Amino acid sequence: MSHGGDIYSNKVNIDFSVSLNPFVREAFDGSFDDALKETAKRAFKRAGTYPDLKLVSLRESIAKAEGVSAEMIVPGNGASEVLMSAIRSTDPKNVLLPVPCFTGYEHILKGIKDCKVGRYFINEPFDTGEDLADFISGSEEKIDLLILTDPGNPIGKNIDENVLIKLLKEAAKRNIKVILDESFYYLSEKGFSDKAGRVRELTDEYENLIIIRSYTKLFALPGIRMGCSISGKVLADKINDNLPEWNISVINEEIMSSLCVWADDDFIKSSIELIRGERNRLFEELKKRCEKVYPSDSVYITLKGKTDLYDKMLDKGILIRDLGDVPGLEKGYYRVAVKKREENETLLKAMDEVM
Amino acid sequence: MSHGGDIYSNKVNIDFSVSLNPFVREAFDGSFDDALKETAKRAFKRAGTYPDLKLVSLRESIAKAEGVSAEMIVPGNGASEVLMSAIRSTDPKNVLLPVPCFTGYEHILKGIKDCKVGRYFINEPFDTGEDLADFISGSEEKIDLLILTDPGNPIGKNIDENVLIKLLKEAAKRNIKVILDESFYYLSEKGFSDKAGRVRELTDEYENLIIIRSYTKLFALPGIRMGCSISGKVLADKINDNLPEWNISVINEEIMSSLCVWADDDFIKSSIELIRGERNRLFEELKKRCEKVYPSDSVYITLKGKTDLYDKMLDKGILIRDLGDVPGLEKGYYRVAVKKREENETLLKAMDEVM
Repeated sequence: MSHGGDIYSNKVNIDFSVSLNPFVREAFDGSFDDALKETAKRAFKRAGTYPDLKLVSLRESIAKAEGVSAEMIVPGNGASEVLMSAIRSTDPKNVLLPVPCFTGYEHILKGIKDCKVGRYFINEPFDTGEDLADFISGSEEKIDLLILTDPGNPIGKNIDENVLIKLLKEAAKRNIKVILDESFYYLSEKGFSDKAGRVRELTDEYENLIIIRSYTKLFALPGIRMGCSISGKVLADKINDNLPEWNISVINEEIMSSLCVWADDDFIKSSIELIRGERNRLFEELKKRCEKVYPSDSVYITLKGKTDLYDKMLDKGILIRDLGDVPGLEKGYYRVAVKKREENETLLKAMDEVM
Repeated sequence: MSHGGDIYSNKVNIDFSVSLNPFVREAFDGSFDDALKETAKRAFKRAGTYPDLKLVSLRESIAKAEGVSAEMIVPGNGASEVLMSAIRSTDPKNVLLPVPCFTGYEHILKGIKDCKVGRYFINEPFDTGEDLADFISGSEEKIDLLILTDPGNPIGKNIDENVLIKLLKEAAKRNIKVILDESFYYLSEKGFSDKAGRVRELTDEYENLIIIRSYTKLFALPGIRMGCSISGKVLADKINDNLPEWNISVINEEIMSSLCVWADDDFIKSSIELIRGERNRLFEELKKRCEKVYPSDSVYITLKGKTDLYDKMLDKGILIRDLGDVPGLEKGYYRVAVKKREENETLLKAMDEVM
């Protein structure tokens, strides 16, 4: 799949290939840009000193916001850095990858020697469901790592919570480590659930579990790389062993410290409500225009259309995500971001013109 | 060795454990802080877009400054990130580590499975010299990775260039990959040499060579993590495979792009000349006070003194680097930064009081 932000090699007016919170400013109480500017100013004042090697203060801030203890938090330069370290820290030999999924996992896994990747093809409508749990419990092959994504990506469905628990139980029984990539969690319908309680319950109950979170998507700041992992201390220590020393700059430290406070329940709920309204509207409009459109709980929608849609939209200056090379999908699948009304209208209008 | 910047768990007035260019503002033509502020402002304007996945523009800027081609450059969040990826990319089974050296290598190597670390103990005065080349050529064991540091760290001597070439030739003959950590190169006497020419010649001649550079030390901006590797394309591609996607934030991208232009020959030479004056002075003064002081070509000096010097200096609010747990050294070895006159005087005065 063409990676997010591929605006550098294309002439792009609107980038629908990247999915971020379009309503940061509407959902934020007070002035987001001023608050961010103040934080950045404070950060640059510290540019002449090394970051804290142990990131004590940052880990405490994130831990407080996520409702867990600081020793369970490992901050990373975006979810992608902490994902790579988390996957490597499990020293996987046999990975089970339910597909279609984020192609970034494959980038990481191909760099690990002697690691076999087994792909489990989820059936349409691509819900990660009970059949996967059945497959795992029935599998005779040794699996040591399972990578789940909630909400799914590119298909934006949340995993049913009962099914997730069933998957985690099954994995624990078979000694399978689980990486649960929740990069878009706070931009999905599940983000409404009690923020602090759920992650603590999950990580308390399942020592084999690593949860990945991202702040860049929630605050639409992908240029600044910010994410973290949440897991038991044993796994957190191993993730740290797989990270470079002083990986987080003081800039990222300061900004992440602010963001995890700003990401309170009100902000998350407002964001999700605003997104839901536009998503439902866009979904209905896309259904009128596309061969297939897949229900989503998040901030992007996957659809099936003509195989030349990507190029034709790019001619109009609109970049959408081509999912043609995602395992489990094929040419003709695309992902579009849910943006603000006016931009979504531009997308739909362009579609009308090229179809 | 207590890691750099351990000011977060101690009450520290002056940090002599961290070595940076103390003369950035004196050596810089015009106003450094204003230029940096402008760059930071430009960077933050891009916070809402993803960094370029391939970092085309940044790699071109660094390549131009270093006199090599863009495909040879891999930018990292500080030398530490690119060091980890470079070491991992060689998939080492038997590493030869001349010690004493930077303990960060051991942090990286302990995270690599089935990797044996052989330590070669350099004799006092700890110059990396001909005896190491002889050892390698006489060794019957298979070595696949050699890590060299120029200038040495914690001992700040440059490797004699003829000896370096001999080491590189020997390594090439025996199919040993070499990581040459030049993090402090531009803050050492060797930094006077023709900037563009040398690194191209070395990397053209030796396909087994990866050079590591740092910008954070030269510009005294360790809070912003900035470094890169320079190598042939084959190795560069492997290093990239071992890095997370979008590892460099737009903040780092913009600032690094500026710094590699600002790091011209004049700036480097002025910096080194100013450092040399203070280093020579500090060296002579330390000789009067310490059991042993080791000659340095860089921006820090290693010395031997009483075993309680670290604690006694810390009582005075001065943090020095304790080298007691560095392989090849022992309790009583310390490293101090070369700073500006006034701060160096404070160091010497405190020493007088505690000794």
